[in-house]
Amino acid sequence: MAQKKSMKIKKSEVLEVLKKLGEQIYMQLVNEDFPYVEMPSRSTKNIYYDKKLRQYVLGDKYVKRTTRNIRHLRPFTQLIWLADIAHQLINQGKTCTLRDIFYMSQAYEVDFTDQPESDDIITDLESIISYAREDFNIFPEERSAIYGDLTIEYTVPRYEGKRINLTVHPDGVMIGPALATADFVDTSAEIVLCIEKGAMFTRLLEEEAHKKFNAIVIHTAGQPPRATRHLIRRLNEELNLPVYIFCDADPWGMHIAQVIISGSANAAHLKELTTPDAKWAGVWASDIVTFKLPSERLNELDIKRLKELEKDPRYGGEIWRREIQVFHKIQRKAEQEAFSRYGLTKIVDDYLPRRLEEMKSF
Amino acid sequence: MAQKKSMKIKKSEVLEVLKKLGEQIYMQLVNEDFPYVEMPSRSTKNIYYDKKLRQYVLGDKYVKRTTRNIRHLRPFTQLIWLADIAHQLINQGKTCTLRDIFYMSQAYEVDFTDQPESDDIITDLESIISYAREDFNIFPEERSAIYGDLTIEYTVPRYEGKRINLTVHPDGVMIGPALATADFVDTSAEIVLCIEKGAMFTRLLEEEAHKKFNAIVIHTAGQPPRATRHLIRRLNEELNLPVYIFCDADPWGMHIAQVIISGSANAAHLKELTTPDAKWAGVWASDIVTFKLPSERLNELDIKRLKELEKDPRYGGEIWRREIQVFHKIQRKAEQEAFSRYGLTKIVDDYLPRRLEEMKSF
Repeated sequence: MAQKKSMKIKKSEVLEVLKKLGEQIYMQLVNEDFPYVEMPSRSTKNIYYDKKLRQYVLGDKYVKRTTRNIRHLRPFTQLIWLADIAHQLINQGKTCTLRDIFYMSQAYEVDFTDQPESDDIITDLESIISYAREDFNIFPEERSAIYGDLTIEYTVPRYEGKRINLTVHPDGVMIGPALATADFVDTSAEIVLCIEKGAMFTRLLEEEAHKKFNAIVIHTAGQPPRATRHLIRRLNEELNLPVYIFCDADPWGMHIAQVIISGSANAAHLKELTTPDAKWAGVWASDIVTFKLPSERLNELDIKRLKELEKDPRYGGEIWRREIQVFHKIQRKAEQEAFSRYGLTKIVDDYLPRRLEEMKSF
Repeated sequence: MAQKKSMKIKKSEVLEVLKKLGEQIYMQLVNEDFPYVEMPSRSTKNIYYDKKLRQYVLGDKYVKRTTRNIRHLRPFTQLIWLADIAHQLINQGKTCTLRDIFYMSQAYEVDFTDQPESDDIITDLESIISYAREDFNIFPEERSAIYGDLTIEYTVPRYEGKRINLTVHPDGVMIGPALATADFVDTSAEIVLCIEKGAMFTRLLEEEAHKKFNAIVIHTAGQPPRATRHLIRRLNEELNLPVYIFCDADPWGMHIAQVIISGSANAAHLKELTTPDAKWAGVWASDIVTFKLPSERLNELDIKRLKELEKDPRYGGEIWRREIQVFHKIQRKAEQEAFSRYGLTKIVDDYLPRRLEEMKSF
């Protein structure tokens, strides 16, 4: 088991950072300065692809939000209110959603025109304190799931210290706030398989893929929520498990894999949401040909998306460029479930073993 | 604990019915008849609202699908193929999705133009054998979740006989094929709370609403999948638990509650998906006024929907009619999370206890 930092210790770090932010503002007021904060600029001009880190990062431009400027007063107040709420959430061991924050503000007469505005302030706080909103207990609504021989220990107050093994429920275990903040205790797994579709996830569980491949299986439910991306990173870092990602064979599935691997531009201010060593293991465009999968014609939107991906610096690697060319050539796409054509077990009995063997040389 | 029929016994009943269907076709062939099946017509002319059953039901019109008619040959073949697949699925203890069925057909050169066509044949089989597709192991992809003091025993092969208590995971337990087919063993719960939104579900779990109200809490994830509706019915029937449904205060939320209570017209051929004694307990239009909830103006679509509901026979009850009038009057809607305006615990500390007390007299 690799060295790990308990999720509980992380929460206390976030509390400390929030407290410092408060002290800083307080001292500015005591010194009769106009209070202000500085944060890295998130404008597209300040977003770069970092080849070493293999993710988007922010450059060195900073913006100052100061109460000296009347137009800054509103977002400054919103931000300080939010930092206080974040501090309360961690202290009380409660979580809430992005939507909750929007509504809670109304009780304090902190005015947000709409949720995009409050979401934006949450991102501001993330970039000021360099922690993801999940670290200060603000989660989106979506859920994904996990299954396999991994014992975790909860850090949420109600369940603190309790342990479960993630094979406890045969439908998979939901990745909600409690699971996302649990510590890893023990595992016999040797790899992580990330699966885009619920149908395929259930298939793998029923075929006991976790035993056959010694795997922890994750259902990303399409583009995985950030808490799930962070969990995948931790499995890779803390447990040294290689990560393989399986999605639909289309530009959108390919991009789900890419975001797990190298993150998204709008999370350029955060560093713990990527898994640069994770591998896109299928379904590839070339698999459509090799396995004679039932497929559909790429539509205009697919082709437009494919052209965008070609220009994207994250798609520089050999496998990406090769498969984009195959998509262009065959002009077809396929879903993961397309393997059902060959019976329900084909994917586990044939496709996955072959692909995982192949991936060793990548 | 009320009398119950083990889910395992149910599967063997379905197997028996499928076998009989096969024998019937076989005997028709042996007797040199053109094979045929008869099924209740699902045309709108044959769908009635049954006030006693409090759900939509099919009338007594039947349609005959016979191989004597060349236009019937295709759907007849599809149907018999599907019945065989259903039989295999149950025998092998495997589940699959609607989408899988569409793909699997291709291996057998059973031709479906698209998934709506295969979905339709699945509904045909449901109405012929009078069992829901979940009973022959075909599930949709969506998932909802459950939490509370309820011990279940799995009937799926991999976990057969194993028991868990549904408080095992603090994020809630996924309602997938394994949970949907589990037997109930024991509970201390006295009510069931169905919650539309994930945010509110998490809120209730964090506030330990299951202890405060002695409740099993269910996240419907919007309109609940049929497996979840069936589970709610079983909690009501087998465990005699009253069911209370909380949704957004808008025509769509109201209809989520209604479908849990009295089902939908396109499941008129099935009888085990409704919970006629379940109660719509909020968020009501009148709650927007009483609790001064943050709200939005009803848009054109909302108003159109509201007018449709007024004509719907399922909306004849007093509470429905009263609240539809309030919606018309105030012309506003609110989300469940709107209670966050009064802090995260308002809904559990104040709103729910008051409402559940009130509901006793309904």
